[in-house]
Amino acid sequence: MQIGVLGTGVVGQTIGTALARRGHAVRLGSRTANNTKALDWVASNGERASQGTFSDAATFAELVFNCTSGTASLEALRSAGIGNLAGKVLVDVANPLDFSHGMPPTLAICNTDSLAEQIQAEFPATKVVKALNTMSAPVMVEPSLVPGEHDVFMSGNDPQAKAQVRELLQEFGWRNIVDLGDITTARGTEMVLPIWLRLWGAFKTPLFNFRIARQ
Amino acid sequence: MQIGVLGTGVVGQTIGTALARRGHAVRLGSRTANNTKALDWVASNGERASQGTFSDAATFAELVFNCTSGTASLEALRSAGIGNLAGKVLVDVANPLDFSHGMPPTLAICNTDSLAEQIQAEFPATKVVKALNTMSAPVMVEPSLVPGEHDVFMSGNDPQAKAQVRELLQEFGWRNIVDLGDITTARGTEMVLPIWLRLWGAFKTPLFNFRIARQ
Repeated sequence: MQIGVLGTGVVGQTIGTALARRGHAVRLGSRTANNTKALDWVASNGERASQGTFSDAATFAELVFNCTSGTASLEALRSAGIGNLAGKVLVDVANPLDFSHGMPPTLAICNTDSLAEQIQAEFPATKVVKALNTMSAPVMVEPSLVPGEHDVFMSGNDPQAKAQVRELLQEFGWRNIVDLGDITTARGTEMVLPIWLRLWGAFKTPLFNFRIARQ
Repeated sequence: MQIGVLGTGVVGQTIGTALARRGHAVRLGSRTANNTKALDWVASNGERASQGTFSDAATFAELVFNCTSGTASLEALRSAGIGNLAGKVLVDVANPLDFSHGMPPTLAICNTDSLAEQIQAEFPATKVVKALNTMSAPVMVEPSLVPGEHDVFMSGNDPQAKAQVRELLQEFGWRNIVDLGDITTARGTEMVLPIWLRLWGAFKTPLFNFRIARQ
């Protein structure tokens, strides 16, 4: 599949590499084409890897991952182009973390709204699926880094889009995929970031994940 | 131990009964003494059970559980009396769920503050420990209702108070008690309520709980 990955940070590079290794053609998108991080990533990831602007990546893609900083995501997606994203599945991995008030960060959007809902509202022809935003980047693409059973959550309005994202998650090795419901349930997963950050502090490692124990 | 339980709802009654069964003397407190729910609870729980006003329960108690509705907790605690609560451990089980905008509820306090922090700020001589607010009432006092390993979180500023709460949690059967840190970490556990409510919707049962999978 041709996949666009928006964002050249750790999350974007980690997901881009994992997708390319599994045979997908991946275009990494950023604000400016040919930046050093994007060129280095392409050089390390073989012939299935390419890079360009957000718009280049969205145009190329059948499916798009949003791996930009949460507080910059809407601007990045506008730059990708509403038409270039129309009809496509967008996997929203971003969290609207606001570092402007010091550490730990707060959420720029929460409680009565979520980043995923704001994206879905502004890009109504795009099928937004929130996923992978509740764990560290290495765990997103290699869940076996955390021992035992543990879960990835999924929120979105379109059942077919969620089925497609489920397949990609299974390619990454996810066995336990919890469909929470429509895109408003993304409030729930974005709002676990505060405890996630405190758990990182308590355990001194980001290699952990949520498991919902149940009968 | 003499324990006060503020709140005569399902959470207060469940915790009160569990404590009385384990040999503690429990006084259930509510806005008005001798209300039907409190009298029924006393009648069902033997000689170690008593009831009264919030103030009666706080006066009686060596340690207090706040099981009132989160949006009414500060008012209930004021009624219990700042002097009656001074020097005592207060286990804050409440969540500031706001049902005034329909279902699912939002949080009346979150992100940059928490109910537990507001209580600690207004009752500085009381040792507030947030715990048990991330699971349904039956699971709070009988964790084996959910199979396998799963966790209860604890937040608070006073290490001795947390040690005392840890012992009570162990009496309830908790094996995995995660100390997140100071009282500001209660933001994290209060903010899991939105996903908790959605998980209940997805699983059609409240008999589940969070487990942090890790190495």
